Amino acid sequence: MSLTLIYNARVITMAEDQAVFTGGVLFDNERIHSVFSGKADQSIAVKAAVKVDAKGKWLMPGLVNTHAHLGATLLRGLGEDLPLDQWLKTVMWPNEAKLNRELAHVSADLALTEMIRSGTTAYLDMYHLFMDEMAEKAAESGMRAVIARGMIGIGASETEQKAKLDESVQLFKTYHNAAEGRVRVLLAPHAPYTCPPDFLRRTADIAKRNNISVHTHLAETRTEIDEYKAKYQKHPASHLAELGLFDVPALVAHGVHLSDREINLLKEKDVAVSHNPISNLKLGSGVAPLRKLTEAGVKTALGTDSAASNNTLDMFEELRSAALIHKGMHENPQETKAYDLLKMAGQTGAEVLGFNNTGRIESGCEADLILIDPDAPHLTPSSVERTISHLVYAVKGSDVTDVWVKGRQLMNNRELTSLDEEKIRYEANQSVKKFD
Amino acid sequence: MSLTLIYNARVITMAEDQAVFTGGVLFDNERIHSVFSGKADQSIAVKAAVKVDAKGKWLMPGLVNTHAHLGATLLRGLGEDLPLDQWLKTVMWPNEAKLNRELAHVSADLALTEMIRSGTTAYLDMYHLFMDEMAEKAAESGMRAVIARGMIGIGASETEQKAKLDESVQLFKTYHNAAEGRVRVLLAPHAPYTCPPDFLRRTADIAKRNNISVHTHLAETRTEIDEYKAKYQKHPASHLAELGLFDVPALVAHGVHLSDREINLLKEKDVAVSHNPISNLKLGSGVAPLRKLTEAGVKTALGTDSAASNNTLDMFEELRSAALIHKGMHENPQETKAYDLLKMAGQTGAEVLGFNNTGRIESGCEADLILIDPDAPHLTPSSVERTISHLVYAVKGSDVTDVWVKGRQLMNNRELTSLDEEKIRYEANQSVKKFD
Repeated sequence: MSLTLIYNARVITMAEDQAVFTGGVLFDNERIHSVFSGKADQSIAVKAAVKVDAKGKWLMPGLVNTHAHLGATLLRGLGEDLPLDQWLKTVMWPNEAKLNRELAHVSADLALTEMIRSGTTAYLDMYHLFMDEMAEKAAESGMRAVIARGMIGIGASETEQKAKLDESVQLFKTYHNAAEGRVRVLLAPHAPYTCPPDFLRRTADIAKRNNISVHTHLAETRTEIDEYKAKYQKHPASHLAELGLFDVPALVAHGVHLSDREINLLKEKDVAVSHNPISNLKLGSGVAPLRKLTEAGVKTALGTDSAASNNTLDMFEELRSAALIHKGMHENPQETKAYDLLKMAGQTGAEVLGFNNTGRIESGCEADLILIDPDAPHLTPSSVERTISHLVYAVKGSDVTDVWVKGRQLMNNRELTSLDEEKIRYEANQSVKKFD
Repeated sequence: MSLTLIYNARVITMAEDQAVFTGGVLFDNERIHSVFSGKADQSIAVKAAVKVDAKGKWLMPGLVNTHAHLGATLLRGLGEDLPLDQWLKTVMWPNEAKLNRELAHVSADLALTEMIRSGTTAYLDMYHLFMDEMAEKAAESGMRAVIARGMIGIGASETEQKAKLDESVQLFKTYHNAAEGRVRVLLAPHAPYTCPPDFLRRTADIAKRNNISVHTHLAETRTEIDEYKAKYQKHPASHLAELGLFDVPALVAHGVHLSDREINLLKEKDVAVSHNPISNLKLGSGVAPLRKLTEAGVKTALGTDSAASNNTLDMFEELRSAALIHKGMHENPQETKAYDLLKMAGQTGAEVLGFNNTGRIESGCEADLILIDPDAPHLTPSSVERTISHLVYAVKGSDVTDVWVKGRQLMNNRELTSLDEEKIRYEANQSVKKFD
């Protein structure tokens, strides 16, 4: 691929020195060749086949959504404000049962359009339908993706359990590190409360044998913990550790109901957490102990969960909520810091998904980049000093104008280049008759 | 003014029957003449001088911001994540001291552009600089506004106190119900902890004598309450009631730290509350007891507070946050209901600001209307049944395309008609050098 030059931007590098300056970047689909402040000198400019005048826009690494369920995107806005079990039983499960191949594709396509539009460049998709096709779709869309075939172990016969595990291992063998490293695959038992211990142990064994990382839901609701403890006399985090699931790199979603003991365990086992504040609020699950997690040294990133419980896939919304709610809950404006949250929403997310060479604008890193147009009242007045604050507390996903992943442009001045957005939205709107 | 017809819209009436249907509305600058479902019949269409084909857009009453400080908008993004007293002393006060006439105007203009862009049609502005000019500005902008000259009573000599009160009364006499009723004026002692009892009593007497409503900050932080109780042996809410401030219609901002006793007192005295969830989170003030307030029958509306502590003036953000945080805090997805919140963000806001004939799309009401473009992934799929959910949990302020206040169009397909947005943003950006 030829070289792209972005110039005249305010560059938010997210590098060690936290530098923010006016300048640009030169990259191809392998790596960022150079990052410069001021004007691009002739030796740089001459190499570029594509030149993007960013005219005062803000250039930063893309955001990373570390927990989502793309297949459920068509269920956005169905049956709100219900108790969790009623919502699952009367809204989610009956409607998810209607997702055939065609609808699952439309649902995922819709999620991809929304994620790219709002500046997300990498995501984790935990779902159970046609995940091989979802891996292909991720590859074609140009996005960076972790594919996690969610496995429910309850009630499934030995044959069914084995089929799910085999499917997951096959997925891993076929798609892990596919699309020049843009697609990765994890093993994903759904949750401790939906997978009996022997299934989890078996999953752990397979993960260890094949060197596959794992992803699961953990400690989302208080009820779940209470019921789990009544049944197994231990917190599910301890149980997962015992069963060997944390002997491979693990990322757990939610982590709302964790005591210091479990937090220390996660740290000890080097387990990362995907904090999903909006979904946790909306479903009445609670508020995760973010500061305790980060102070204990647990790698904590951000995720949206599904559009059915959020109801957007906009990581800027997630970032802002994460930056706000802990301050309020603990009545302490210093509970979280803007820059730390911004790092969590991008770089830490990239790291916990295994995309270690993204999330920073530095020579040698891969080019997962977004441009933001600050020419709007809610981002005014603007200055270098106010940039981080605006990114955390004021930017909307709709301010993103351009997106590159691994050097390929996926959105150009608000037009998607790899997906037919109009067709996708049309098909998605047509689908509503199928649900209720 | 001639008649405007909006047709082909999805109409969210916010009327008693909560109707949502495809249709339109015919209005002038006095009132809505008719609301219809389906196509406009010829007898209606023929009357309209201006016809707006809303092509599947959503038409709803504008949102109402019941607590803001327009003059502080230029301080957006300065000095984040600080303890409240440090933030006030090192960031807010020194920078507010730099606000001369020119900067105060730019600050307010910037706020107006942001509010109109994000679908706000009425607001309350509590500030202390050039409030007569701010009343004129509100009138010219076409917005509906409540002007509240914030009065700090601490340390001010008798002469200074009197001057502030005189200025406020003069404001009331000149501007209350000005601009065909679009501008109203309140008496606004800043807060119990910044106004000694005799100043508050005097304010109450003047309010009663002149039949002026009042607005003040109340119970924003825990420290404030503790210190107040130590000094006066009572909660400031009780004290305000004793001092007579609740003998006129009153609206208090924040109401975070209220026990059942104060909540009942507010109900008894018919005091309304402006709930400002985002600012309360960001400053670490806490989370107001929203459900207790509404269940006790206290009229509770929403507000953004200033852009320095939010950091936007986007009422859709405020609405979404209010809908989310109480569910999470109380671990109960039924703690708040989407429709109730939507009503709070518009109709109840209009009511507590004294604009009783707005906030609903009904014949006879005044036309404070907005159009939202749902042609975006985050509002897809769309159906009549999902509309309320999308409005509360997924719409962004940037989805608003058109705004009318009292029948006059203030934004036309995302272009502001009464304000020179480009000039305002330029001037606002120029101003940053003046602050630090």
